[in-house]
Amino acid sequence: MPPVLSDVDYDALGKQVSVLRVPYTRDSAGLGSVAIPIAVIRGGPGPTALLTAGTHGDEYEGQVALLKLVRELEPEDVHGRLIILPALNHPAVAAGRRLSPVDGLDLNRCYPGDPDGTVTPVIAHYVEHVVFPMCDAVLDHHSAGYSMRARPFVAIHDAPDRTVTDRALALADAYLTDTVAIWRGVDAGKNQLAAAERHGLAAACAEIGEGGRLSPATLEATESGVRNALRLLGILEGRPARREERGLAPARLLHTPSADCDVYAPMAGIYEAFHEPSALVEAGQAAGAIHDIEDPTRQPAIVEFRYSGYLLLS
Amino acid sequence: MPPVLSDVDYDALGKQVSVLRVPYTRDSAGLGSVAIPIAVIRGGPGPTALLTAGTHGDEYEGQVALLKLVRELEPEDVHGRLIILPALNHPAVAAGRRLSPVDGLDLNRCYPGDPDGTVTPVIAHYVEHVVFPMCDAVLDHHSAGYSMRARPFVAIHDAPDRTVTDRALALADAYLTDTVAIWRGVDAGKNQLAAAERHGLAAACAEIGEGGRLSPATLEATESGVRNALRLLGILEGRPARREERGLAPARLLHTPSADCDVYAPMAGIYEAFHEPSALVEAGQAAGAIHDIEDPTRQPAIVEFRYSGYLLLS
Amino acid sequence: MPPVLSDVDYDALGKQVSVLRVPYTRDSAGLGSVAIPIAVIRGGPGPTALLTAGTHGDEYEGQVALLKLVRELEPEDVHGRLIILPALNHPAVAAGRRLSPVDGLDLNRCYPGDPDGTVTPVIAHYVEHVVFPMCDAVLDHHSAGYSMRARPFVAIHDAPDRTVTDRALALADAYLTDTVAIWRGVDAGKNQLAAAERHGLAAACAEIGEGGRLSPATLEATESGVRNALRLLGILEGRPARREERGLAPARLLHTPSADCDVYAPMAGIYEAFHEPSALVEAGQAAGAIHDIEDPTRQPAIVEFRYSGYLLLS
Amino acid sequence: MPPVLSDVDYDALGKQVSVLRVPYTRDSAGLGSVAIPIAVIRGGPGPTALLTAGTHGDEYEGQVALLKLVRELEPEDVHGRLIILPALNHPAVAAGRRLSPVDGLDLNRCYPGDPDGTVTPVIAHYVEHVVFPMCDAVLDHHSAGYSMRARPFVAIHDAPDRTVTDRALALADAYLTDTVAIWRGVDAGKNQLAAAERHGLAAACAEIGEGGRLSPATLEATESGVRNALRLLGILEGRPARREERGLAPARLLHTPSADCDVYAPMAGIYEAFHEPSALVEAGQAAGAIHDIEDPTRQPAIVEFRYSGYLLLS
Amino acid sequence: MPPVLSDVDYDALGKQVSVLRVPYTRDSAGLGSVAIPIAVIRGGPGPTALLTAGTHGDEYEGQVALLKLVRELEPEDVHGRLIILPALNHPAVAAGRRLSPVDGLDLNRCYPGDPDGTVTPVIAHYVEHVVFPMCDAVLDHHSAGYSMRARPFVAIHDAPDRTVTDRALALADAYLTDTVAIWRGVDAGKNQLAAAERHGLAAACAEIGEGGRLSPATLEATESGVRNALRLLGILEGRPARREERGLAPARLLHTPSADCDVYAPMAGIYEAFHEPSALVEAGQAAGAIHDIEDPTRQPAIVEFRYSGYLLLS
Amino acid sequence: MPPVLSDVDYDALGKQVSVLRVPYTRDSAGLGSVAIPIAVIRGGPGPTALLTAGTHGDEYEGQVALLKLVRELEPEDVHGRLIILPALNHPAVAAGRRLSPVDGLDLNRCYPGDPDGTVTPVIAHYVEHVVFPMCDAVLDHHSAGYSMRARPFVAIHDAPDRTVTDRALALADAYLTDTVAIWRGVDAGKNQLAAAERHGLAAACAEIGEGGRLSPATLEATESGVRNALRLLGILEGRPARREERGLAPARLLHTPSADCDVYAPMAGIYEAFHEPSALVEAGQAAGAIHDIEDPTRQPAIVEFRYSGYLLLS
Repeated sequence: MPPVLSDVDYDALGKQVSVLRVPYTRDSAGLGSVAIPIAVIRGGPGPTALLTAGTHGDEYEGQVALLKLVRELEPEDVHGRLIILPALNHPAVAAGRRLSPVDGLDLNRCYPGDPDGTVTPVIAHYVEHVVFPMCDAVLDHHSAGYSMRARPFVAIHDAPDRTVTDRALALADAYLTDTVAIWRGVDAGKNQLAAAERHGLAAACAEIGEGGRLSPATLEATESGVRNALRLLGILEGRPARREERGLAPARLLHTPSADCDVYAPMAGIYEAFHEPSALVEAGQAAGAIHDIEDPTRQPAIVEFRYSGYLLLS
Repeated sequence: MPPVLSDVDYDALGKQVSVLRVPYTRDSAGLGSVAIPIAVIRGGPGPTALLTAGTHGDEYEGQVALLKLVRELEPEDVHGRLIILPALNHPAVAAGRRLSPVDGLDLNRCYPGDPDGTVTPVIAHYVEHVVFPMCDAVLDHHSAGYSMRARPFVAIHDAPDRTVTDRALALADAYLTDTVAIWRGVDAGKNQLAAAERHGLAAACAEIGEGGRLSPATLEATESGVRNALRLLGILEGRPARREERGLAPARLLHTPSADCDVYAPMAGIYEAFHEPSALVEAGQAAGAIHDIEDPTRQPAIVEFRYSGYLLLS
Repeated sequence: MPPVLSDVDYDALGKQVSVLRVPYTRDSAGLGSVAIPIAVIRGGPGPTALLTAGTHGDEYEGQVALLKLVRELEPEDVHGRLIILPALNHPAVAAGRRLSPVDGLDLNRCYPGDPDGTVTPVIAHYVEHVVFPMCDAVLDHHSAGYSMRARPFVAIHDAPDRTVTDRALALADAYLTDTVAIWRGVDAGKNQLAAAERHGLAAACAEIGEGGRLSPATLEATESGVRNALRLLGILEGRPARREERGLAPARLLHTPSADCDVYAPMAGIYEAFHEPSALVEAGQAAGAIHDIEDPTRQPAIVEFRYSGYLLLS
Repeated sequence: MPPVLSDVDYDALGKQVSVLRVPYTRDSAGLGSVAIPIAVIRGGPGPTALLTAGTHGDEYEGQVALLKLVRELEPEDVHGRLIILPALNHPAVAAGRRLSPVDGLDLNRCYPGDPDGTVTPVIAHYVEHVVFPMCDAVLDHHSAGYSMRARPFVAIHDAPDRTVTDRALALADAYLTDTVAIWRGVDAGKNQLAAAERHGLAAACAEIGEGGRLSPATLEATESGVRNALRLLGILEGRPARREERGLAPARLLHTPSADCDVYAPMAGIYEAFHEPSALVEAGQAAGAIHDIEDPTRQPAIVEFRYSGYLLLS
Repeated sequence: MPPVLSDVDYDALGKQVSVLRVPYTRDSAGLGSVAIPIAVIRGGPGPTALLTAGTHGDEYEGQVALLKLVRELEPEDVHGRLIILPALNHPAVAAGRRLSPVDGLDLNRCYPGDPDGTVTPVIAHYVEHVVFPMCDAVLDHHSAGYSMRARPFVAIHDAPDRTVTDRALALADAYLTDTVAIWRGVDAGKNQLAAAERHGLAAACAEIGEGGRLSPATLEATESGVRNALRLLGILEGRPARREERGLAPARLLHTPSADCDVYAPMAGIYEAFHEPSALVEAGQAAGAIHDIEDPTRQPAIVEFRYSGYLLLS
Repeated sequence: MPPVLSDVDYDALGKQVSVLRVPYTRDSAGLGSVAIPIAVIRGGPGPTALLTAGTHGDEYEGQVALLKLVRELEPEDVHGRLIILPALNHPAVAAGRRLSPVDGLDLNRCYPGDPDGTVTPVIAHYVEHVVFPMCDAVLDHHSAGYSMRARPFVAIHDAPDRTVTDRALALADAYLTDTVAIWRGVDAGKNQLAAAERHGLAAACAEIGEGGRLSPATLEATESGVRNALRLLGILEGRPARREERGLAPARLLHTPSADCDVYAPMAGIYEAFHEPSALVEAGQAAGAIHDIEDPTRQPAIVEFRYSGYLLLS
């Protein structure tokens, strides 16, 4: 028996809204399951795009933007096929947490997944092995979550196949954010971008919003960004908007060459950042101070940047 | 035996940095205690101000601002006496949570406290019955915490004694925020402002910062605000700055006439606020929408404002 | 500020469905509250009956029966007033547990409540001090819950005022169960029946259903029982049905003269009951056996009844 | 070192009662272990039957029936060998829970197990790889547990080898329940029946009892059923009883052709089943209603059956 | 209904072994209770002594010594009456913890108790208000528990009534430990010694054993001590042994004049004590060092004694 | 990306103190990590020794001894290289627990580790696959922890390669404890000694201290032992001390031939050991008694030794 059940017919024309069901046995429900909402909207011929949000439950912009898309789009609006998963890690979404309360795992550290694992690796396995092979492009939606602050940006991977990277960069540009990050972070290999790279898909990961909150401005940026990217793919009608038409400079491209870009705290305490996100900083410059809450007379520890560049997350 | 132990001598001249110790028996420490950092700085004659932060552990601006004051101020800088408690609910501060992990209580719902209660009511009791009688003014420091967003403001109570209210209003004004709120919230009677009112103290409660994060701008506003208020009290040297000197309009006074001002969610889901904090809104206007994460096709529930006015917290 | 907020107008004619709101501060919601659904249906003149269910979250028949009544009854059906609380201890109902997950308390051990206590005592206080004074009769709905088995019965208290007991007995009879218990259990004084007794109200407590499950037969018995009791009170139209009309013997009256009626397990293990609920048993007779799961060769401990009579719960 | 230790000699004649010991390191016991009671009773020559109960800790009939067998049977009563494990997932049994409190796993989702895993997969591994190779037949004992209701039935797998299926069917028939289910549920491959199938064993799984409770009637049915099956195997003396001798119709055979037989809840709430277990139902017929506990005015969601047939579990 | 139930007849001659039952409602047992073992042994006329152990569940010497006494003593051995509670805080004893897992409380911080409180204050209330009025002397048994080390000693209170103190001192001496402490610790007023003082009882509290372990030597010291104290009271036959008969110096009397005797850790880390328990130390001398586990290069913090004297607990 | 990050240069001359960083994503820190303190001290040419402590967080002697070594030793003191990990399972050390609070695992049951696993197996993998290949000898430091008592000893494995065993035995002897154990315990294969054996390293595991406590005497024995072993290796200057020089008999060699040496409790209760650690005991002799805390009249169960020899742990 497959580890994920669904009555969705990915090949059918029209609009289906249903659930993916992952078995999850509990004390109070021996035959229980986790139900992940899914919509498939298929119009005429054209490419297939996967839209995901809710990989982390405390990142809300993409969740709401995709819920709205499901309600607003009809098959006649779609050239090709949209597969929309607005609450991909549903247990984490229902809890408003980064990690799944079911198994304590971060879905974005679980790819390529495991069909015999706990619920989160089963989800990752289904996405990578069942959904990805049907797709041409993937648009994932994060925010800085509860624990970080950031100006809106879109991240892509620097794929070995240059044409894949170029298509991903075009998708990222279509969100019209000031920054596009070429990501090589602490988690490469196990996240969804890396999984998409394994399948040769053009993939962009929007990081719009912060602080575990949903604001009107960041929601609007997400909604308009995803629709613009779908226009670029030819799935939605209309010419995609471009930054220059709006009098904006081209997006700044940030390269994160190594994990050494990350700066870690040397002691416990309250972190006082000295710079707002997007600031231009220098290697050796003070990034912030850590204040010891036990001993007010102890001087705070100063953390320094190790690379020069623009500050992405703080 | 008193329920709170300390070697601090509140009457001594000079600068003392020590702890208040609240007995707290645990499986792993039968004679254990909670240690709350305290500083007392006494220069020559003058009034006594109590400065507190860390009532809620996830509100950081005041904690850092007061930790810095402890390190920076010396007795010769102080006309009168400063009693500084930068991590008042220390267990909550150490956990970065609103509630104390020791007993699950919100310190700001525990006044007048209980000397025979669990740790949090013991703290409240000590503040109200031991510290307040020594004070002339109280400056408490909050932020909107993890769960809310707000533009900086300072709150006071509308005390029955008009002269007390006027003194509190002057203290609030000294923080130079755009808004001052005359608070009558859902928790009156059990919070620290209400406790101060019972003692006839001039009390102001800064609410600067939001989202469980510390930003450079809100930290700076807190630090300059508390120093300006101490100048107004005559405890620190110098003439207090005023908004008009900086070309700013007088602070907007917001009155919260009743608990009906609060708007509650009618169903579970993700809340999409339609307005940024500080927006001017009308009774009957849509405040936001609640999106059901289970069923994407269900129309979101619209929440409406019941009063007209400026939006303080969202 | 009162500890329970509501926009319900108990005096208004018509049908209102709203919530009682009990402030409940959490890490993730500083101004949060618990919302308890309430309906008030007032037709013309007549008595007031309070209908409650969900005191224990794992007892479902009354919850569903009252939810249906709220949807089905209109003001024109009601002579007098119905106050319906189908999920009185809402946090326990949402969790499907006997105890509230908020404070670990059993609402039926919390009367007369405490307006300064945690959420459950606040609920008890509101019921006893705000709602009871408006009422003439109280119909509460339990089942044997997860942990016990029982044939359907209705319990009343043996009140000092004989006329109150007679009115309660008539209400209990109207549920048409085979058994009516005159309850003096292990918890007298702190449960809702005892609270009603303090206010001189005619009060009946249906115990229909068992095992933490809802079955078609026990749901039907609850629904028809509550409607019949409301006919007896004159609040609903029609003549109340009686057991004799259906060829049934009068309900058996069970008196529980003292707490010694209860039998306790002398060791840990799996309890094998020797009798089905409602069996006629004798003092000294074996009630059941406790099997030690650690040592299969150990003879089970035999538990004996201390009183003769009918077995109410097992 | 093998991951399970025992001093049991499976080849010895006579009756041994001991434990299987699975290492389980804890904070409070570095060299701790889980002790699973086991009895081996060997008389003269004959087949070997494994009797298990306590795979789920909240299913009690089989546990008590097997504890009694251990005390009652002596080697002279046994033709061949009985291996009896009355509390197979001992940590779950001690907790009265479906899942093991040690690792949160459902033993019946852990086959073929893992000798390097946590405690539950180690148990599964030992059963499948050490015990099964010694056996001719397996009788496992479940009930509907806390979370489900069902009339008594016995389940077998439809094995590829027809003679195995026939032998299993005969074992199931020997329990004399009204229903025998040919199971192909949501968990095939990882449960004990599937493990037995991999070893070509005749295996029957009794499902007698429900609701996390032990009743006199279902306990008696389990005890007489297991003894009758052991007579059929020739391990106990005597001719096995048959349904027709008692004037009963042959057991009804239920085939569960696919996982689509299961019906899932589309929203959260209280489930009102419209049918008792064993009812004959039709595809498209209403199975039950889900009542929203937040909003009494919302119409309940109706769940429909997708297949016609007899209702096994509800 | 009284909050503690028991079938013990304190006035009856003979030996009774039963339980005190404190109602304790749980999700899985609505009418559940905590059962505290009790023995009452009454021979002819004479005084009444209460023997308690298990106030803290991780202190084992007294628990085992009293369990043995219950098995060994018969009414003919007893002049007067013994009331023996070997596992007074039974939930803590069953868990092997200092605090009760039921309500998280330390029984020795709960006197005079509360009949309407959670389980632990109900126990304290029963001891102080029901048991103490029947007693002439109280022998309580602790050890240093999991979290502390100490040489065996017996503690008494310095009661206002000198004759009470003298009788307590004689009882303490009868344990024949090298040290007797006149206790005025951090918890006076709420512990059992203070409760006994309120009732004018001669009370001694043995502190024999340490580290949450039971050793042969400390168990023997406890057993011989309690029997010797009972001889002194005239309840057991025989002349009480005295230290001088064994060539031992009189017990050293330690006075703990104030809570300032306690020394607290100024930072988190691993504590390295410089002295074994019972060492003679000087004010200002280094007591130990606290090693920071985060930063190996940081010098450990040195803790100093504030008083000179013998080290009781470390 | 490697699963463990560090800026340590193992080949550099000099003294480096830094951390190993294991990624650990949390709700409150998406890019969080666990920081394990490490020191590398390299003088001139010579062998490499790995010194570890804190595999179990509740075993303190080794942790403090290694923290001191880091502060005291400089490159000029070292012939060769020291790699010092004083808090190897840092999360367990910070919690003072045997198991890691991060994933509930015992590091000493996790070798050879898993680079894709949770934090503890990642640590084991790094030690075995990155650090061990650089080493000539390994000195690990345990104590009997919270749950056991023991006289100091050092354990080694009986390796297939006799020269490896001889070198390990010499290292063990250098700690000068009265006992050296040739360990073949319940956990061979998954602990650090077994991992060292796989790499052909001379490895000794000190077990000095007990009861979750740090005493002056056991700390001193650990400090002098590790320095003496380093002298034997030629890494520290000086001639290693020998037992005979101090007039001590050669260390007693204890062989633990099989897991049958361990004795397990047959029932729940309080264990009364009859012998102190290091006693000489006989097979069949009573080891101790288990007292039932529920029923004082029940005779305690007697546990017997199965082998003759010296008692290592109790």
